[in-house]
Amino acid sequence: MSAATPYVPPIADYAFLYREAFGRDIVAAASGGAITADDAVEIIAGAGEFAAEVLAPLDRAGDRIGARLENGEVHLPDGFAEAYQALVEAGWVSATAPESAGGDGLPESIGAGLGEIWNGANMAFALCWMLSAGAIHALDAAASDELRETYLTKLVSGEWTGTMNLTEPEAGSDLGAIRTTATPREDGTYSISGQKIFITWGDHDVASNIVHLVLARTPGAPDGAKGLSLFVAPRTLVNADGSLGERNRVETVAIEHKIGIHASPTCVLSYEDATGYLVGELHGGLAGMFVMMNSARVGMGHQATGISDRAYQGAADYAAGRLQGSVQDRPAGAPIAEHPDVRRILRSMSSQVFAMRALAVHVGDLFDRAAGDEAVLPMAELFVPILKGWTSEEALRVTSDGIQVYGGMGFVEETGAAQHYRDARIIPIYEGTTAIQSNDLIGRKVLRDGGSTVGALFAQIDETTAALRATEGAVAVRIADRLARTVDAARRATDALLAFGPGRDASAVSVPYLMLLGTLSGGWMHALAVVAVAAHAEPAEADAARLTDADFYSAHHLARVHALAETVAAGEIA
Amino acid sequence: MSAATPYVPPIADYAFLYREAFGRDIVAAASGGAITADDAVEIIAGAGEFAAEVLAPLDRAGDRIGARLENGEVHLPDGFAEAYQALVEAGWVSATAPESAGGDGLPESIGAGLGEIWNGANMAFALCWMLSAGAIHALDAAASDELRETYLTKLVSGEWTGTMNLTEPEAGSDLGAIRTTATPREDGTYSISGQKIFITWGDHDVASNIVHLVLARTPGAPDGAKGLSLFVAPRTLVNADGSLGERNRVETVAIEHKIGIHASPTCVLSYEDATGYLVGELHGGLAGMFVMMNSARVGMGHQATGISDRAYQGAADYAAGRLQGSVQDRPAGAPIAEHPDVRRILRSMSSQVFAMRALAVHVGDLFDRAAGDEAVLPMAELFVPILKGWTSEEALRVTSDGIQVYGGMGFVEETGAAQHYRDARIIPIYEGTTAIQSNDLIGRKVLRDGGSTVGALFAQIDETTAALRATEGAVAVRIADRLARTVDAARRATDALLAFGPGRDASAVSVPYLMLLGTLSGGWMHALAVVAVAAHAEPAEADAARLTDADFYSAHHLARVHALAETVAAGEIA
Repeated sequence: MSAATPYVPPIADYAFLYREAFGRDIVAAASGGAITADDAVEIIAGAGEFAAEVLAPLDRAGDRIGARLENGEVHLPDGFAEAYQALVEAGWVSATAPESAGGDGLPESIGAGLGEIWNGANMAFALCWMLSAGAIHALDAAASDELRETYLTKLVSGEWTGTMNLTEPEAGSDLGAIRTTATPREDGTYSISGQKIFITWGDHDVASNIVHLVLARTPGAPDGAKGLSLFVAPRTLVNADGSLGERNRVETVAIEHKIGIHASPTCVLSYEDATGYLVGELHGGLAGMFVMMNSARVGMGHQATGISDRAYQGAADYAAGRLQGSVQDRPAGAPIAEHPDVRRILRSMSSQVFAMRALAVHVGDLFDRAAGDEAVLPMAELFVPILKGWTSEEALRVTSDGIQVYGGMGFVEETGAAQHYRDARIIPIYEGTTAIQSNDLIGRKVLRDGGSTVGALFAQIDETTAALRATEGAVAVRIADRLARTVDAARRATDALLAFGPGRDASAVSVPYLMLLGTLSGGWMHALAVVAVAAHAEPAEADAARLTDADFYSAHHLARVHALAETVAAGEIA
Repeated sequence: MSAATPYVPPIADYAFLYREAFGRDIVAAASGGAITADDAVEIIAGAGEFAAEVLAPLDRAGDRIGARLENGEVHLPDGFAEAYQALVEAGWVSATAPESAGGDGLPESIGAGLGEIWNGANMAFALCWMLSAGAIHALDAAASDELRETYLTKLVSGEWTGTMNLTEPEAGSDLGAIRTTATPREDGTYSISGQKIFITWGDHDVASNIVHLVLARTPGAPDGAKGLSLFVAPRTLVNADGSLGERNRVETVAIEHKIGIHASPTCVLSYEDATGYLVGELHGGLAGMFVMMNSARVGMGHQATGISDRAYQGAADYAAGRLQGSVQDRPAGAPIAEHPDVRRILRSMSSQVFAMRALAVHVGDLFDRAAGDEAVLPMAELFVPILKGWTSEEALRVTSDGIQVYGGMGFVEETGAAQHYRDARIIPIYEGTTAIQSNDLIGRKVLRDGGSTVGALFAQIDETTAALRATEGAVAVRIADRLARTVDAARRATDALLAFGPGRDASAVSVPYLMLLGTLSGGWMHALAVVAVAAHAEPAEADAARLTDADFYSAHHLARVHALAETVAAGEIA
């Protein structure tokens, strides 16, 4: 029975992506040879082994039992604390932390693989690691030496975990409405008071302390988002010698009863005269938080990929074993994986997963290259909302497809397909809803530079189309034709958006435009894979499947660009 | 807080559909004036009041508490038995039962409204009513006078409820694999033995007896589906005088732990030498079951519409009350319903709901007319898989959109948005998965007659396009242009399908083809509404919203036909 489908880390895909899908060893190219694709594959394989053995087996119990709030303390199911300690001891927390913060500073392209694997194995658990990673980025960017010494080092070592405290009951997507106050005390610390909601891993029993990063408003600060400052408010205060002191005045008032990620405690935290320490500049809170949010948004692309692949693995395993439809030569029936429509669904899932995975690696690579070449940064930043928005929306489709493959058994909780569907539903909401991503996309990334960055993307896709045609393979040329027509449609949609300019017309079709660029980018990733496969002197084992996935994606998913382009051109209909 | 969003029955829409959307009083036309649209609206209003007052308030508790199996008996949450009795006493069970079975024989077009309303108010509860309705149809079509007298009358009165027993662990979509046996006894009854799974409302405590309709195989029967016969096997045996006797040998072994519809007990039933009575001809079981399945499949269209509308109502209510984004003239923020992207999502939902609702009424009307004019039957039957498949897939999108409008609160169970999303996930699975529907569509409804019925549908849409143009309204003409281009795409896709002929190519794109026809039909429904609105001498209150919904649907949903047509033309990619 499929409940026992083991998690298989997608090592071959990462090897292909690091080594050849983009026409070169991207890891070596971005690191100047300091680290190579072969090193990356070894790291990914190690992470995959750890995830499959330690994290994946806790995923179902995490869902069934979930995090519990008892006497003001949050408890995770048995095994979570041990798994977290094992993660720390294996060095996986410090692996992706920047070198400037004392971490190993692994390239972002490798971070994409790690992020996918932790999330694929156990999405609720992975969130703990992801939130710490975000807090590390924010403190590394802005914290004083004292705060770095006291808090950042403990986050990087994994001894403590981190959280982001943004949302309040009346301040969701609109951070300007935040009311939590931070009042300066004579000793230089701040007194923090207010209620924060939706705090992921806001309390738990898997590590000895929690470093809350809190957005709050100081007395007399400007209205709106520009008046916000960022503070560290640890769950337990830290003595001068670094040892833990008394509890800070922050209480876990409730944890949410959610449709999914039951083992990720989503807390309501109440701060009442809690002690906080200013991070960075006064009223510079939003800038500090944006550092954290960008890393978290890219991380959501890894999460969406991971949960989608997990759903695919379960469905493929079930479909291979489930016999239905007896035929002459097989009286017991054929595996449903061979039935045309199940085959369609599985191919739809696998081709989406590859597109997401490849785009996440590409975005990681862009950030890696941008570290040495500022000119790459706009393209990297263009992709942040696309990666977050598109993969998270597609994860809903993929995990739903996963249920469909199981048929009636998919609606029953025991198979696990339902859990992936429930878990995935949060991804298009947190770290900025798809609408928030799409507003960022059209406002800051497309309209602001008059479409020049997105135009450069289209030009890159044109090059790939030409390379496809040059292979002269029948499938490659068919894909090239489809890709060329969709790039045309994307250009028309972009022209329509630029003609609208900022305002309601552009905003009202910003999500369709984001989905258009994501879908197109996914098709581009497949096209790059086909070009790479065509260069093989001898066909590799996975080549046929890569061609079929690419062909399928271009006929079933990429075709949606035509519909989305029509929608974008319509503007607001109200 | 939106948890308390009351259910509001969509009476104005039904009035519009019955009276004018199709250019005439369809109720009067189909019934030869025996009953009119005004009567229909009164019936819908009565049902809506009952549903809002009695059924909707139980929906959340039904989800939270769910059906429980204790000592072999299934118990529903408090209030369910009383609600069922109230439904019976108000005459709502017999209302839609055929006159031949002793029911009121309300037209199917009115049944569409009732079906939507019961499901919109409480989907888990409505399933009890739906399964009984299916059993009534099956017995009315084939049962002997004795079985009619003993069982059918009690089903029509609502005193007992009915179930369908098809699925077995190794026989899901493939009914030919059914192993349950029915061995003739000397007294003319049969001994039924075997295990049936996924039996909706297979046991409960809301009525005094349950009439199980069971597909089983008699000794020496042909292999496969052609060897199946249909039996009545009541939960409690019935004495000669009609009183209840001893329990039949059917046990509830388990109920499923499902992602949704928690108050609909999904039972594993074990028959061990249970007493059964043959319904209709020996080996004629599948034909008998098909009667039940057709009615159940149409009913799924009502269910998908109901849950979608419920999700829309919750989201619209929440969005109207949730303030975010303070602006100069409104420092507290504007309702998120006015934000461009939330507005887009709400419009996407409302325009889908209308399209589903109108199509369900149209299909009901086709069946009503087919009763007097056999020539209408092929068109009615063409629409059965489209209605079931398309509305159930779209219900996933609409209920997911509902969560998105709530943002983080949508992921939390308290608001109810998550329940609709969980409940809806079963609709594309039961009563035949979307793949089963699409195989029926392409095999029996499109390829078999060489595309002539679907061609007649396209011709009807052409007429509506011409009528739209004739109104000379700017929105109407815009919609006509979009509709005309999508009908062209649909014709091309149909030509491609006919060129494939039966086989893997057609099967592999049958779901995209079904979605194409459903999406197109939805656009046609909106187009008919625009034509009807254009005929108003004075604008009615809802006219502007109907135009905007139609405009939106044609730009956002109908446009997908272009993508789907490309996909269909690609055939199998394997």
